[in-house]
Amino acid sequence: MTLSLKNLLNPKVKMSKMGEFQELQPIEGLEISAISADLYGDGRDDLTLFYFKEGANFAGVYTNSRVTSASINWNLKIKRHFVRALMVNTKNANVFTGTKGAQGLKEIAHTLAKSLTLKSSQTPKGISDVVKITDLLFASTGVIGEEFPYIKIKNRIPDLVKKLRTEQNKFVWFKAASALMTTDTRPKVAYEEAKIGNKVVKLSGIAKGSGMIAPNMATMLGFIFTDANIPSVFLKAILKKVTATTFNSITVDSDTSTNDMVAIFATGKAKNLKIYNVLDPKLQDFEKALHRLCLNLAKQIVVDGEGAKKFITINVIGARSTTMAKNIAFSIANSPLVKTAIAGEDPNWGRIIMACGKSGENIVPNKIQLKIGDHLVVDQGKAAKDYKESTVKQYMKWDSINIEVNLNIGSANYTAYTCDLTHDYIDINADYRN
Amino acid sequence: MTLSLKNLLNPKVKMSKMGEFQELQPIEGLEISAISADLYGDGRDDLTLFYFKEGANFAGVYTNSRVTSASINWNLKIKRHFVRALMVNTKNANVFTGTKGAQGLKEIAHTLAKSLTLKSSQTPKGISDVVKITDLLFASTGVIGEEFPYIKIKNRIPDLVKKLRTEQNKFVWFKAASALMTTDTRPKVAYEEAKIGNKVVKLSGIAKGSGMIAPNMATMLGFIFTDANIPSVFLKAILKKVTATTFNSITVDSDTSTNDMVAIFATGKAKNLKIYNVLDPKLQDFEKALHRLCLNLAKQIVVDGEGAKKFITINVIGARSTTMAKNIAFSIANSPLVKTAIAGEDPNWGRIIMACGKSGENIVPNKIQLKIGDHLVVDQGKAAKDYKESTVKQYMKWDSINIEVNLNIGSANYTAYTCDLTHDYIDINADYRN
Repeated sequence: MTLSLKNLLNPKVKMSKMGEFQELQPIEGLEISAISADLYGDGRDDLTLFYFKEGANFAGVYTNSRVTSASINWNLKIKRHFVRALMVNTKNANVFTGTKGAQGLKEIAHTLAKSLTLKSSQTPKGISDVVKITDLLFASTGVIGEEFPYIKIKNRIPDLVKKLRTEQNKFVWFKAASALMTTDTRPKVAYEEAKIGNKVVKLSGIAKGSGMIAPNMATMLGFIFTDANIPSVFLKAILKKVTATTFNSITVDSDTSTNDMVAIFATGKAKNLKIYNVLDPKLQDFEKALHRLCLNLAKQIVVDGEGAKKFITINVIGARSTTMAKNIAFSIANSPLVKTAIAGEDPNWGRIIMACGKSGENIVPNKIQLKIGDHLVVDQGKAAKDYKESTVKQYMKWDSINIEVNLNIGSANYTAYTCDLTHDYIDINADYRN
Repeated sequence: MTLSLKNLLNPKVKMSKMGEFQELQPIEGLEISAISADLYGDGRDDLTLFYFKEGANFAGVYTNSRVTSASINWNLKIKRHFVRALMVNTKNANVFTGTKGAQGLKEIAHTLAKSLTLKSSQTPKGISDVVKITDLLFASTGVIGEEFPYIKIKNRIPDLVKKLRTEQNKFVWFKAASALMTTDTRPKVAYEEAKIGNKVVKLSGIAKGSGMIAPNMATMLGFIFTDANIPSVFLKAILKKVTATTFNSITVDSDTSTNDMVAIFATGKAKNLKIYNVLDPKLQDFEKALHRLCLNLAKQIVVDGEGAKKFITINVIGARSTTMAKNIAFSIANSPLVKTAIAGEDPNWGRIIMACGKSGENIVPNKIQLKIGDHLVVDQGKAAKDYKESTVKQYMKWDSINIEVNLNIGSANYTAYTCDLTHDYIDINADYRN
């Protein structure tokens, strides 16, 4: 199940009952297929293709890691704003795979371009132009440093292209979202609508990620498809702004992946009024919808964090700057001591204070007010007057925990999202490759 | 058991057999006592006093956290270079305890000063001067935010002073080192000797710490006592230099404590030649001895890291600067994914590469050479030609794991020490306060 935002903010809702999956709508101009190249050896879907018959405007943001996958390198190199397809494989990250990894990807690109050109020319109303390898984007997720199985993948491309379908009912979206999963326990999907002028545009999004999750793109893939007609340069500006407070506001374990990518594709089929300016008021509703969708997907990633039993929202307010608020929020969100205390349902608020202190930010300890849920815990440099540990201990039993730190020295704020640190995280990661 | 440095570098030695405790020698001019103020309610020793009848030169380094304990604040305020006593309590960190915590500490200081003055005047050869509260240092370690039990502590001071003894056999040192323990599973002691001119001087050190350990002083107390005669200002210079590559080169969980303190006390009783200059060659042997002692204690803290089963040495070489080497070493040492892989004895080297990448340092991925133990694992942007996973998997079974990252872009290096991340860490920290 996906969580509705409303439920995520309700501490009385069990994580496992946080809502139903949203029903995604088809995006005109998009075709999807997902098959198995048997990369796991168990027949699960591991290869997904998103194809835009008439192309799509595109914007992407990538990992900040200095070590990046061959697919990220490919995408960064082509610098296209108009693309024809995105192919995703799991199991193998194609990182530290040498020239063989990069060369293998290039062969795949050639095969895919050929197959798609053939497909275009065969469809009754097929557009005649040729799909070039520079029209293609790639994403990979999986183990680093294992030889990239490009032949296995290449051989399955004709079948992958053959299975492309324009119909996108909820099963198709689930199949695609499921084909992106590695240690994920459930697919992540979200849907929003927005008005641009008098047209309603659709946004369907899918994502994957559950470990190696930290700001600046974690092991996380997020793909958003819309039928809006928005130039790529504006898509880029909006996407960067939106990810700063959604995908980049989550952390599972402070580890950053080599393969992260969030991208938006706009087919333009909604035929909304043309946008000439990123500040065009007609874009406001779209930006809000994209923000809701990305925050929803980002939260789903945290909820599915490896071993996560609790969803934690850390809201730092009253800071001198957003940077200060963000540093403190992540200092708390990444603290193993805070995360284990929450796993143990122990209101050990001293560790939250410790995390504020170690952030290096110039705070005034005596001014800090700390709330856990609605309960004021710390005030004036000590435990709050009416603080009752037993009450907060009760609150800690819920699946969704809210922590609010008011620094009381300014007016900037930032919200980070994370999960607790449990035995299951260790289990999953101590023998991830077995 | 303490570990000898030699054994720590031998991967075939089981962590539990890493050597015998060193036998600490008495330091002339120092008296020690440790008793129970029943702060834990189980009668264990929790109050320790180090007293210098004729005073001692002193230098200390403290946590970089913005939130500090009342005892750290006290020590920073008095800015003394010549002290008479250090008192340490466990169980309660005296952090976020409001004015009550600070006021309680002041009352303790007054009582302690009075008791020590009385003692001085009663000893046959007692020096007659009065012990002032500004002659006293304090350290606390334990839970943050619980009311500081200053009355309980204050009431035990007369007995604590009465039990001061000049004899320091190994049992006295153990008793003192044990009285500092919180989640530690064993006391940490180390001993070195050095020559200053033609005099042999002694250095006896004890430490505590096992969680909330990260650079810039973790939840760590380290106290070194020497009979050398060295001015405080030179002690400070040497201590700062030595801690940079010893106590500040370790990390258990990236969390930094509010109470860290490493201090050195020099009674001057060895009557070595006077030192007039911090660059005096006569100090070199002392500095080396202090470095060995601090590195030994620091490693003992890592070995006793909460839940630690393996000791991990991360050596980053060939960097452009020490800062670069250090950032990458800690990026690896603090990565939960690296630490869980090592706990699982899985040579998942991709995670080490990931940690290099997320450091933000301007590395050249294709130049990285990664060794696990003596085995070359990564070379030229991919798995090394002769890399055999099965061989390295065998190596991963040892209790002490060496990781070497050669960036091959410069000549600076840095070594960090850490431990693996296991189920026991979660157990210890999920219900630390119960």
